Amino acid sequence: MHNITVALDAMGGDFGPSVTVPAAVQALSHFPELKVIIVGDQASIQNQLNELGHQRSSRLTVRHCDRIISNSEKPSLALRHSQDTSMRVTIDLVESEQADACVSSGNTGALMALSRFRLKLLPGIDRPALVTALPTAQGNKTWMLDLGANASVDADSLFQFAVMGSALAEQHLRRKPRVAILNIGAEEIKGNDLVKRCAEMLSQTHSIHYIGYIEGNELLHDAADVVVCDGFVGNTVLKACEGTAQLFVDKLKARLSASSIKGWIARILFSDLISEVKTLNPDQYNGASLLGLRGIVIKSHGSADVPALVNAIGEAVHEVRRQVPNQISDRLEAVLLERQ
Amino acid sequence: MHNITVALDAMGGDFGPSVTVPAAVQALSHFPELKVIIVGDQASIQNQLNELGHQRSSRLTVRHCDRIISNSEKPSLALRHSQDTSMRVTIDLVESEQADACVSSGNTGALMALSRFRLKLLPGIDRPALVTALPTAQGNKTWMLDLGANASVDADSLFQFAVMGSALAEQHLRRKPRVAILNIGAEEIKGNDLVKRCAEMLSQTHSIHYIGYIEGNELLHDAADVVVCDGFVGNTVLKACEGTAQLFVDKLKARLSASSIKGWIARILFSDLISEVKTLNPDQYNGASLLGLRGIVIKSHGSADVPALVNAIGEAVHEVRRQVPNQISDRLEAVLLERQ
Repeated sequence: MHNITVALDAMGGDFGPSVTVPAAVQALSHFPELKVIIVGDQASIQNQLNELGHQRSSRLTVRHCDRIISNSEKPSLALRHSQDTSMRVTIDLVESEQADACVSSGNTGALMALSRFRLKLLPGIDRPALVTALPTAQGNKTWMLDLGANASVDADSLFQFAVMGSALAEQHLRRKPRVAILNIGAEEIKGNDLVKRCAEMLSQTHSIHYIGYIEGNELLHDAADVVVCDGFVGNTVLKACEGTAQLFVDKLKARLSASSIKGWIARILFSDLISEVKTLNPDQYNGASLLGLRGIVIKSHGSADVPALVNAIGEAVHEVRRQVPNQISDRLEAVLLERQ
Repeated sequence: MHNITVALDAMGGDFGPSVTVPAAVQALSHFPELKVIIVGDQASIQNQLNELGHQRSSRLTVRHCDRIISNSEKPSLALRHSQDTSMRVTIDLVESEQADACVSSGNTGALMALSRFRLKLLPGIDRPALVTALPTAQGNKTWMLDLGANASVDADSLFQFAVMGSALAEQHLRRKPRVAILNIGAEEIKGNDLVKRCAEMLSQTHSIHYIGYIEGNELLHDAADVVVCDGFVGNTVLKACEGTAQLFVDKLKARLSASSIKGWIARILFSDLISEVKTLNPDQYNGASLLGLRGIVIKSHGSADVPALVNAIGEAVHEVRRQVPNQISDRLEAVLLERQ
């Protein structure tokens, strides 16, 4: 078993080292091949380690740095003044091959800009894309991209998203994923020029299992394994699903927490229903991947708690094991050969 | 009290006269000032009336026509071959001022194309927009547009959507509505050129109460009274909300229908929970308005049942009472004066 080294930005997210350090420690016990380099303020990190009664070791090292990129900082500004920030140092550990992947809960825009600047794009990729797995009613997953790495794209980029998403999903599913384009109707004539042009490209590409258009209501219903859309649509749609799911969870919680006898019986009968229902919230999977780079970058939610951040680290481990950037390159090459 | 005449396309939707005729009859008892002209195959309509034991009267008349626009027909083709179809005749009753508004559950694309062709746009409007009211956790409504009348728009059109949505919502709320733009982040710097340019226009328009950007997860949480976006985003986001809501309703139903003792107790205690939860599905309100036309056109879901279609007729009655197209014209004029 090869070692896998993940660099973890300890300072990102809403809770900083109080979440990132315990998550690193938990992840080490989950993944025996894992090594973690925790990047950030040494004193705060050491405090957390002391609280946990955990020692530094060859599997858990700390890289000190003084500065932090705030959540409100503009990506362009963050890029110019990134020297010695925890996010920049974390990414640079991947660039210098001291780490196999990195994970950050920090400023998404800055993470995308810095990753692209430091790690560079894979050949044949015009824009990186943010992807995550959505739950489905059938208990499967659907990978959706782009979730906001780009506010607007052209058909070539959307096509590349389909290739990248397909390569990633195949490493999870171990079969050829069904790829669909998110559109405003299932008929051929529907949609804007972007989706129509991309549909034409995909339907001519036999190495991708393209199944056509799907609509928004089919997203959590296992209609496809990979769904591509521009970053504006992906971001608003994903958040709309999360907001709707939250509404239902809140409603159910209110019922189950009622102090009446009805509430009391409800708690006995349905204590498991909330957790079951929560698994349908797209928010549950933490760890969105930034695809298209010469390196593995995982974005964790800013509000991630310890188990959620462990999930994100797990996604990093998985992508290193499966060498996802190489898989994407291979898939791209095959597609380009086919299209020549 | 003035009479209000609504033309109803009897042949549109998945169920045709078996839903449209009973809905017309029910609507007549709901709205004392209402007259309905039912448009479609006379024999089928009469059959339904006979079954209901209801007579034609001065309040319920029938306009026979032979042809139907199918759901799969392309709008451009439907437009060319619309003569004597129930949808065309329904719209023409508004055009010739024999009806004050029309309602159809038929082919959405054809309805939009035909409405625009026959009724024409209001002065100052470049494109019509489809709008509906979403429920919110707080029990209020949020009007969202465009829901797919246009697959792509420019900033001027998006701005006009904001003006139209504001005029419509004000007629429901009786106060100045809070208008927001759907975006991928709340910060000023986020988003594509379209939303940025529209935001600039709205923030300079004092007769519109513009409150800035909102994100997808805030949609059903009463963050704004009117939310504007392009038709591609609006359509996918609305359907994603509906799909997510459906998932939760299905989950709950499965629990409550279990044949175990648990299911039995659950049904006694929580029979009202499903209907409560259903009110959070954006799908519940039937009757989307096509705004920007010189006439009132209401699009009902193809799958609408009798109560849902009565709602859509109710929306038509409301818009006639409040003279929504005139309100939009007045608001547009005020905005144009202000911007000169």
